[in-house]
Amino acid sequence: MSNVTLNVQGMSCGHCVKAIEGSVGQLDGINEVKVNLSEAQVEIVYNESKVSLEKVKETIEDQGYEVE
Amino acid sequence: MSNVTLNVQGMSCGHCVKAIEGSVGQLDGINEVKVNLSEAQVEIVYNESKVSLEKVKETIEDQGYEVE
Repeated sequence: MSNVTLNVQGMSCGHCVKAIEGSVGQLDGINEVKVNLSEAQVEIVYNESKVSLEKVKETIEDQGYEVE
Repeated sequence: MSNVTLNVQGMSCGHCVKAIEGSVGQLDGINEVKVNLSEAQVEIVYNESKVSLEKVKETIEDQGYEVE
């Protein structure tokens, strides 16, 4: 299990939190996803053998946010 | 038909626009609702005999925003 914190731009409100936590949380291999609005960060705990970090980033970008 | 522009705090992103336009737009008597994010305003065209301004304000507040 790996723990990564991504810097994500454009998250501004509770809807954004739900959009990201919901979509990333649905991916197979994600054990935990937590958005920190004030820090503009998304923290994930995931299983590297099931899901790639690239896939997580794509999922966040698909919701309309920019992963740095 | 009346036209009113409300000042609304807390709207920050496209999800907020959808939440407000969707919920207010569903009220009977609302002909038009348009959110202007950069101006923090919600403009409505409504039929006063069908819906009160008070009801519109309550609906916006129920979505988690503050009507000034």
